Amino acid sequence: MKKISLLGSTGSIGTQTLEVIRKHPDKFSLEALSIGRNIDLGLKQIHEYKPKLVSVQFKEDYNKLLKEIPKDVQLLYGAEGLEEVAANNDANILVNAVLGSVGLKPTLSAIKAGKTIAIANKETLVTAGHIVTSEAKKYNVQLLPIDSEHSAIFQCLQQENLVEVEKLILTASGGSFRDRDRSELKDVTVKDALNHPNWSMGAKITIDSATMMNKGLEVIEAFWLFQMPYDKIEVILHKESIIHSMVEFVDSSVIAQLGTPDMKVPIQYALTYPNRIKFQDPNRLKLWEVGKLHFAKPSFDRYRCLRFAYDAGKSGGTMPVVLNAANEEAVSLFLDGKISFLQIEEAIERALLAHQNIIFPTLEVIQEIDEETRKFVRNVMVK
Amino acid sequence: MKKISLLGSTGSIGTQTLEVIRKHPDKFSLEALSIGRNIDLGLKQIHEYKPKLVSVQFKEDYNKLLKEIPKDVQLLYGAEGLEEVAANNDANILVNAVLGSVGLKPTLSAIKAGKTIAIANKETLVTAGHIVTSEAKKYNVQLLPIDSEHSAIFQCLQQENLVEVEKLILTASGGSFRDRDRSELKDVTVKDALNHPNWSMGAKITIDSATMMNKGLEVIEAFWLFQMPYDKIEVILHKESIIHSMVEFVDSSVIAQLGTPDMKVPIQYALTYPNRIKFQDPNRLKLWEVGKLHFAKPSFDRYRCLRFAYDAGKSGGTMPVVLNAANEEAVSLFLDGKISFLQIEEAIERALLAHQNIIFPTLEVIQEIDEETRKFVRNVMVK
Repeated sequence: MKKISLLGSTGSIGTQTLEVIRKHPDKFSLEALSIGRNIDLGLKQIHEYKPKLVSVQFKEDYNKLLKEIPKDVQLLYGAEGLEEVAANNDANILVNAVLGSVGLKPTLSAIKAGKTIAIANKETLVTAGHIVTSEAKKYNVQLLPIDSEHSAIFQCLQQENLVEVEKLILTASGGSFRDRDRSELKDVTVKDALNHPNWSMGAKITIDSATMMNKGLEVIEAFWLFQMPYDKIEVILHKESIIHSMVEFVDSSVIAQLGTPDMKVPIQYALTYPNRIKFQDPNRLKLWEVGKLHFAKPSFDRYRCLRFAYDAGKSGGTMPVVLNAANEEAVSLFLDGKISFLQIEEAIERALLAHQNIIFPTLEVIQEIDEETRKFVRNVMVK
Repeated sequence: MKKISLLGSTGSIGTQTLEVIRKHPDKFSLEALSIGRNIDLGLKQIHEYKPKLVSVQFKEDYNKLLKEIPKDVQLLYGAEGLEEVAANNDANILVNAVLGSVGLKPTLSAIKAGKTIAIANKETLVTAGHIVTSEAKKYNVQLLPIDSEHSAIFQCLQQENLVEVEKLILTASGGSFRDRDRSELKDVTVKDALNHPNWSMGAKITIDSATMMNKGLEVIEAFWLFQMPYDKIEVILHKESIIHSMVEFVDSSVIAQLGTPDMKVPIQYALTYPNRIKFQDPNRLKLWEVGKLHFAKPSFDRYRCLRFAYDAGKSGGTMPVVLNAANEEAVSLFLDGKISFLQIEEAIERALLAHQNIIFPTLEVIQEIDEETRKFVRNVMVK
């Protein structure tokens, strides 16, 4: 029985993690969970999964929930509560599925507590990869990727020797606007951008997919997760999202992981690793039904965010923090109708150009630069 | 340094094995080799690779060669010579690349001598899989596949648990006539049939590829190599031959091995296993250049040999012996212009129908049925 604690239970990855747990009550138990703003859904989850420990983001939700949950559930709130859910309970795996940088500190506490970390949260590695990976090494803790691309690479690397890797090849769907060229992106709407062709995901990540910032962040994550230099990490356009990523070895063999797009598959793999268990999937991959798989080389001019990400990744230090914070803020402004789609790129570029890089930043510095960057983006982009 | 002995050095796999050895003189040495009829090429190989032991098929070639090879090369001939090359020398890997059933007995001797077996010879597993696999188990000897499809599956299975496999998926190019339907196969010529779209292979195997008997034999080999029931072995048409085969796991994940079609890659992998070394390949896979990969379901009515193979495999016993011998004889008659392309299927079907199955055949029975079947095919097909 694997005991799981879950940060971010009401988001897209959180709810899908709970679906996996629901299907295998003999294999998994939910020890603890953290809820953000969606208290109604969180309450349902508490009643169904009966965790011993729950934390909510806000004090007022704490007060409200206190009357509605079973007496034997311990309820906490705020940063301290998140910390308890991540580190101080019987769980042996922490699933980090919160959005944004809020998951970083609790993840480090969980590493110190010796828990296996299943990571869906991009910020953890993008902004503090140097701290997280060195801590994981120090405490001999395994980092298991949940993202379909990194899970694919992780699966392709099983028992393979990292020095025998020629390159990692991340596949990218190209997002909602993949069939449009740059000139056709000027007046796209939020609704258009949220219409992802393959994956059902949250709003922020769907926009990131359209700008390919999503892939750029994944390149940086791959750098940290697999300790692979940037010139050995490649991105290829593959519009069907059937091949989730690949590894090319020195002997020219390429190993790929494929499947019908469904985040529950990599989630389940992270939870059952190193084993695999039956996935109750009515939608197994039938390649003869898919018929064709397409591949193309992405252009850094068409997908400028991808170039920004490689550049920020190679610069290291706080550059990826700026990249990530500027992107989050810009996407949020776009979703609120305050800037246009192409201005997302503009905001990121301006933030990166304005920033003076700081190498080996501490958590405090990361936090500071994150806040500064957001402020900067709001100031320069919204008049 | 891995010491290699090579059965069948002048054939397609044999010469490519030697190319791999040539490129890595620091990693491989050639201890012994066996030559069939192509004495001129064999002589060149002896001078270049300087094996300690050589065997030729015929006494007259032995007499001829004796005068032309260096004094320190031990020369033998016939079945006994083959046995010595396979088993009685310092090699730690035997590459079995002979055509036909002649490689079976020496391979069993090599297993008894504790050598790792790299198998390219189909007959070894198709006709005597029950003997070869149980002997390999008994002597704790590893069977490494050289065939691109089985090598792909073998690579996809690294460290995976066989009970977690949902199915093996062998890819098939569909051969020279894949774009023709049955009605267009009546009058095809030998030259047409030998024109394989993707792979450069010997004549026999190119015809087998056109009838898909090749894939049928591979299904039976996969059954033995990976101990997987026939209903868990699937064949899919994939005309680019870029995905060399796949494994689907219970969790619905599919792992695939890909590459530009080049037999030297799986040969090198078998020789370096469990490691990989640099492959000097000017032709690495670039999926964006390939652009598209196609998949389709093969029809058992279009490719009747595939159905025969599944049926013979499921029946077991001597049925695969008959399948293989009837096919070899029929292909040979086709190549000699004595029967038409579609009569290959007819010959196999008639031989299978006429045969009374014998379960758990000994090597002697296998040999006997093999000869009987060939005679039967010649008798009924050539009037």
